[in-house]
Amino acid sequence: MTDNAKPKDATGKDGWIAYRPSIKILDCTIRDGGLINDHMFDDKLVKGVYDACAAAGVDYVEMGYKGSKKIFSPSKHGKWKFCDEKDLLEIIGEKRDGIKISVMADAERTDYHEDILPKDKSVIDCIRVACYISQIPTAIDMLKDARDKGYETMLQLMAVSVVSESDLQAALAIAATSPAMGVYLVDSFGALYSEQVRYLMAMYLKAMEGTGKDVGFHAHNNRQLAFANTIEALIAGANRLDATISGIGRGAGNCPMELLLGFLHNPKFHLRPVLECCENIFHPLSKKMDWGYSIPYAITGQMNRHPRAAMELRAGKTPDDYVAFYDRMAEEE
Amino acid sequence: MTDNAKPKDATGKDGWIAYRPSIKILDCTIRDGGLINDHMFDDKLVKGVYDACAAAGVDYVEMGYKGSKKIFSPSKHGKWKFCDEKDLLEIIGEKRDGIKISVMADAERTDYHEDILPKDKSVIDCIRVACYISQIPTAIDMLKDARDKGYETMLQLMAVSVVSESDLQAALAIAATSPAMGVYLVDSFGALYSEQVRYLMAMYLKAMEGTGKDVGFHAHNNRQLAFANTIEALIAGANRLDATISGIGRGAGNCPMELLLGFLHNPKFHLRPVLECCENIFHPLSKKMDWGYSIPYAITGQMNRHPRAAMELRAGKTPDDYVAFYDRMAEEE
Repeated sequence: MTDNAKPKDATGKDGWIAYRPSIKILDCTIRDGGLINDHMFDDKLVKGVYDACAAAGVDYVEMGYKGSKKIFSPSKHGKWKFCDEKDLLEIIGEKRDGIKISVMADAERTDYHEDILPKDKSVIDCIRVACYISQIPTAIDMLKDARDKGYETMLQLMAVSVVSESDLQAALAIAATSPAMGVYLVDSFGALYSEQVRYLMAMYLKAMEGTGKDVGFHAHNNRQLAFANTIEALIAGANRLDATISGIGRGAGNCPMELLLGFLHNPKFHLRPVLECCENIFHPLSKKMDWGYSIPYAITGQMNRHPRAAMELRAGKTPDDYVAFYDRMAEEE
Repeated sequence: MTDNAKPKDATGKDGWIAYRPSIKILDCTIRDGGLINDHMFDDKLVKGVYDACAAAGVDYVEMGYKGSKKIFSPSKHGKWKFCDEKDLLEIIGEKRDGIKISVMADAERTDYHEDILPKDKSVIDCIRVACYISQIPTAIDMLKDARDKGYETMLQLMAVSVVSESDLQAALAIAATSPAMGVYLVDSFGALYSEQVRYLMAMYLKAMEGTGKDVGFHAHNNRQLAFANTIEALIAGANRLDATISGIGRGAGNCPMELLLGFLHNPKFHLRPVLECCENIFHPLSKKMDWGYSIPYAITGQMNRHPRAAMELRAGKTPDDYVAFYDRMAEEE
């Protein structure tokens, strides 16, 4: 891609030769992957991911959530549900140049006034606030809190594939005047086709026009479209892209970092450290944990439904009973 | 998609609501999947695929190759390498309305004058001639032979990601005046991005303009782009799309039929018979045979290389030694 917000032409004649330096990659391996195992990754794995991302030239690594300890018991969740400062420090050690630390804060699930420290007391660089459309007012207050404390701020508006276009327009208008430095198009259900990604990206970019805010994209891989849709979002003008090593993440997982880095032509990115991490950490882990594309996720994605039922099927005794699952989902439509 | 060759606009505002009746789907499960096991699928599996495709409303089912018995010993290859009439009849039984039978004939690997019978002596409907660009003259003669014998004819020009644009233009000009009823853009190495698919589709469509010939698309899934690129080809104007059940096929496999049918909105297509086939035939088979996306295929795809080395790695003792494979491939570049 070229240095412009939009590529020169739709044929992309030099689109895949050049690159756009403003593109920033966020690794959410530990954060989205933690949704599979209640955030119980051990330090060795987390450090392996952090080191791989730093060596790969990834811009941000998202370590987990800032979950409320009043809502989520620390005895039942791993430490990456909370991202306490001491736990982050244990992984990061001496902070490196070039890679920033991000955490996610869910609206109505974070004691943000208390648990998010002033920036000068934290190794965190960026707070990403995730919310459903009905939680926008809370999210805006969280973004304001984070901005005032000195952080970079991002808004992840979730599940937009089930939000009406007029509601979405209204939400984007609020986001455009909010303290968020960027807004992400989030395909929570893995339900978007490339045509919809292009359409929605155009809507998000238009809503942010003149504000200086970035637009980002977060994919799910329910129909093997996470990487493809991430490329489409990039071409359409998204400057902030999420990916995970080996595509780990809730349900069908996310855009695989190893594919995304193989596509990006900015020489600051390096694929090899991510391949090492795939080989040494995630390939062995895949024998013990289930993530990634499978037909039940394709079915919920096609139906624009939350992947919950598919996750339950995959975790149960009949993970490959596709037809019974399809019939049940179709009946519930 | 609408009934036009091209959708109304790039945003696809109604692109995924309506459909284009001229789109024809070809299942190449047995043919491309046969490249993994020397075409040794048993009759029960082949009949299962044929029945599923017929029930699903798929337009063509490709049963295998018309391989030369002088080149390929029938004692070392399964019967779907040859697709003898009696073997086809055993599967098809009484021929059904609505689904056509296709076979592939490789240039310089087929005794077409002898082994392809006159249409009235065969259950085959369509001969798809596959060739590399240097084999175009042979391919044209094969297409003429097939057309004169009464068959539908298609040209699969392979490995175009390593063909120069001027050579490709010359080949398409020949194809445009050939007896082929359609020409396929074939992404043999799984090397094309959506931008390239759109660019090449525009070139193919332009070359076929006014001839009445269809343009088709055949994907490989090296980078989880087979389904996405197939959709892009469709949007760009491809009317003939290849897919395989469970995405089976050489190396990283093909566009999964279950994803493609989930995308297509023509009510003649039915997903459920394909899901049954995935559950009852291909899920059990996947425990015994290796196909589909894995990182070595992503590496050869990224490098625009034949997947041969990745296939050898996957079949060997260290199928997940990604870094050593990457280093070796990079050295050979």
